[in-house]
Amino acid sequence: MAEIKKVLVANRGEIAIRVFRTCRKMGIKTVAIYTHADRKAPHVRYADEAYCITADETDTSYLKMDKIIELAKQTGAAIHPGYGFYSENPTFVKRLEDEGIIFIGPKSEHIIMMGSKTGARQAMMAAGVPVVPGTKDPITDVEVAKKVAREVGYPIMLKAVHGGGGKGMRLVHEESEFESSYRMASSEAQNAFGNGEMYIEKFIVQPHHVEIQVLGDTHGNAVHLFERECSIQRRHQKVIEEAPSPFINDDTRAKMYEVAVKAVKAIGYVSAGTLEFIVGADQNFYFLEMNTRLQVEHPVTELITGVDIVRDMILVAEGQPLSFTQDEIVRHGHAIECRVYAEDPANNFVPSPGLITVYEVPGGPNVRIESGAYAGFEVPIYYDPMIAKVCSVGKTRESAIVSMKRILSEYKVSGIKTSIPFHQRVLENETFLAGNYDTGFIDNKFDMEDLKRKQSADVDVPIIAAVIKQLLSEKEAAARSVTRRDVGESHWKRFGRLVSLGNRLG
Amino acid sequence: MAEIKKVLVANRGEIAIRVFRTCRKMGIKTVAIYTHADRKAPHVRYADEAYCITADETDTSYLKMDKIIELAKQTGAAIHPGYGFYSENPTFVKRLEDEGIIFIGPKSEHIIMMGSKTGARQAMMAAGVPVVPGTKDPITDVEVAKKVAREVGYPIMLKAVHGGGGKGMRLVHEESEFESSYRMASSEAQNAFGNGEMYIEKFIVQPHHVEIQVLGDTHGNAVHLFERECSIQRRHQKVIEEAPSPFINDDTRAKMYEVAVKAVKAIGYVSAGTLEFIVGADQNFYFLEMNTRLQVEHPVTELITGVDIVRDMILVAEGQPLSFTQDEIVRHGHAIECRVYAEDPANNFVPSPGLITVYEVPGGPNVRIESGAYAGFEVPIYYDPMIAKVCSVGKTRESAIVSMKRILSEYKVSGIKTSIPFHQRVLENETFLAGNYDTGFIDNKFDMEDLKRKQSADVDVPIIAAVIKQLLSEKEAAARSVTRRDVGESHWKRFGRLVSLGNRLG
Repeated sequence: MAEIKKVLVANRGEIAIRVFRTCRKMGIKTVAIYTHADRKAPHVRYADEAYCITADETDTSYLKMDKIIELAKQTGAAIHPGYGFYSENPTFVKRLEDEGIIFIGPKSEHIIMMGSKTGARQAMMAAGVPVVPGTKDPITDVEVAKKVAREVGYPIMLKAVHGGGGKGMRLVHEESEFESSYRMASSEAQNAFGNGEMYIEKFIVQPHHVEIQVLGDTHGNAVHLFERECSIQRRHQKVIEEAPSPFINDDTRAKMYEVAVKAVKAIGYVSAGTLEFIVGADQNFYFLEMNTRLQVEHPVTELITGVDIVRDMILVAEGQPLSFTQDEIVRHGHAIECRVYAEDPANNFVPSPGLITVYEVPGGPNVRIESGAYAGFEVPIYYDPMIAKVCSVGKTRESAIVSMKRILSEYKVSGIKTSIPFHQRVLENETFLAGNYDTGFIDNKFDMEDLKRKQSADVDVPIIAAVIKQLLSEKEAAARSVTRRDVGESHWKRFGRLVSLGNRLG
Repeated sequence: MAEIKKVLVANRGEIAIRVFRTCRKMGIKTVAIYTHADRKAPHVRYADEAYCITADETDTSYLKMDKIIELAKQTGAAIHPGYGFYSENPTFVKRLEDEGIIFIGPKSEHIIMMGSKTGARQAMMAAGVPVVPGTKDPITDVEVAKKVAREVGYPIMLKAVHGGGGKGMRLVHEESEFESSYRMASSEAQNAFGNGEMYIEKFIVQPHHVEIQVLGDTHGNAVHLFERECSIQRRHQKVIEEAPSPFINDDTRAKMYEVAVKAVKAIGYVSAGTLEFIVGADQNFYFLEMNTRLQVEHPVTELITGVDIVRDMILVAEGQPLSFTQDEIVRHGHAIECRVYAEDPANNFVPSPGLITVYEVPGGPNVRIESGAYAGFEVPIYYDPMIAKVCSVGKTRESAIVSMKRILSEYKVSGIKTSIPFHQRVLENETFLAGNYDTGFIDNKFDMEDLKRKQSADVDVPIIAAVIKQLLSEKEAAARSVTRRDVGESHWKRFGRLVSLGNRLG
């Protein structure tokens, strides 16, 4: 049992602060690392100690393994990796293990195991976790392929072993289409990649991304913390997550929890991890991959369970048992997370780095904000443009959604563009409201053009007139302000800023 | 049943925003009123419509009954009073009743009943609620008085009927002291108030202020939402509240809930209200008064119950039944509220109005902030100096306390002084940590001088040296920053600001 007295977070932004918060609560000292570009970043201000790890302005990388290890030794700190960067890098973790530095995360062997698609698949199959039916073995013969496809069951997806970018892929609905599809895909693969070998996977209709949060300790205990639905994705990146899933039924839920815990125990996994599954419209679920780290979206799980996942990661890294048993964990209510990016949703989500001039975060009930920004902070171009995670919680999904609308309406960021308008549009979408969305939501059910139109509407004459009227009436100390009614609902938000400006001038 | 489509909050600051938040969630439009001095206040920015109710800069009062009623009629809004101002003014509420404007609060008859000390006492006694033993009847004869004192039981408090400010008051521990105490107190009262009439009350040893949150509807339903302990008071003003009470036992708890609900039903009380009790070291409890409004500290109750009290106030005002039954309300965890004031705790809590230059509110898990400020807002001198309520919640009291420490450490306010350092000192106090405090806490158990010393310590030479070192090392792009260790724990906070400043210059 090694007591952790100091934690170095080998990361930046909101996740570094997230970990520091738990450390501060536990009375553990904190160490930040930063690049020259990030010297004014909030995580640097938050920590008890902060060290620059880059040599000069041109060096913006956080991947400074030697430097980080040296700092951990120098400060006597354990290392929490956050997500991204070194969080799933087995070389890094192995070096910490070898040098006797505590890593607040899983063992390197599990990172290696889950880092390999085939290794992960084999380990999970061995533990009784369902995987997407099919074969990863290369097939070159059409008759063999047809036999496999029949066993897997239609619809199936033909994929080129050396493929990528959608080339050499064919969706096959029934056996009568198989031969011609196979020949076309294989020949396309031959032309594109110089290799016509194919493999076959079951095609999941209306797939949902549902993941199970797990935690294991060094004493052989393993628990799940229920599931998260993460099917709202833009270009395969999660943008809104919620817990519990509005899609899976209680029977599926119970089965998923069971296999997840069984798998964690089978491989002896330690620390926090997430088993990601694809779930079909028929409620069948199949293992996709296991993330051997803290997930971005872990707050929704914390909101419905009351568990501080980072705290248990630290306890487990000290060699302590998990602070709770499965039976002690009760699910309460519903939580949603919106990832707010410094991006312009009206302009194809191009990054919008720059100086934040106004930064007012939402308050009130049922809110959790994990932010990596402040007024006066210049969002650098070099890193992930996520500036905050905005979470809401409620007794029901409906209540969490209306709270989230209220919360986003309070979030004021000036100086940069953010993805908030995108989230607001999703929260008004009927498919989303019905809880009936799959990973094709953004492509099939969401009107991106409408979002662009709404966003590009300009301040127009009546608004300016209204502002002038407002300023005049202020001067005359008239009893009545310009109201939302005067300028129309859709213009109110922008107008509000002008009134605010007017008030400052006035 | 009258549907409320718009709500005018006849109040300002955080409580106006608090009510608006629930309205926004419910799809109800909002109307703010403001004075000229408050024209840039956050509640004005929050509302859908905002109306100035004052004639000029010299007029700072929100007590504009005619104007508010006119605005309610003009906008078709129901009125929520918040706390203070018109919230317990029966004349105001009666006028709304007469003019057919919905008041989101109790009936005027109950405000009248509870507004009178004797009326409230009689109503509560009739409903079986224990009151502080004694007599409110004036006594002029020492022998009669002695008899009453014996019935009440020592220790007793002698009070002048026309008294105030501690004059004409005597604590009497036993009968042998009675006569001389009576004569002295009565003669003091005669001299001070021209009247020597006395009354007698039981003196409660180590009194706790514990209050029960109740809600009633027009259908005869009444529920309690557990208790709040509000014994941390400075000059009879609550400054820290928590729920549940760390002091009362489950038997007392159950009895208090029972009498509170019985009383609400007995008088037919409608809307949110609070029965305030004094609880002695022996766990006996006595009714003090009933507040016929939303309390400042209602968020701690919301945090442990998940109930939105404002929402139910609105539903009940529409004539709907309460949205839940007693059985449906389960208490989870522990919540604490710190009232943050624009006051200088190092200088006898003198108000510290002025321009807020930096305003960064805490984030992360287990936080609720109800704020009435933002960076760029000038806190006016004319109103209550509370700028925010900071709440924490945890599974246990201990967890809520460590979260609160973490939360307060993140709260950054520049430009004005705040009471945050005071709260931080209370949270370190052993009596507070033991949950063993009574209303004498600040006077008897808290070292106010220590707070002053800590606050007035100045930036000293090693810190400035360290900052210079830091700036130089930044220029040389050295890999190491100045750390908390370099400057010592106690100076770190102030130092951190300088580093931050240095970084901005750098």
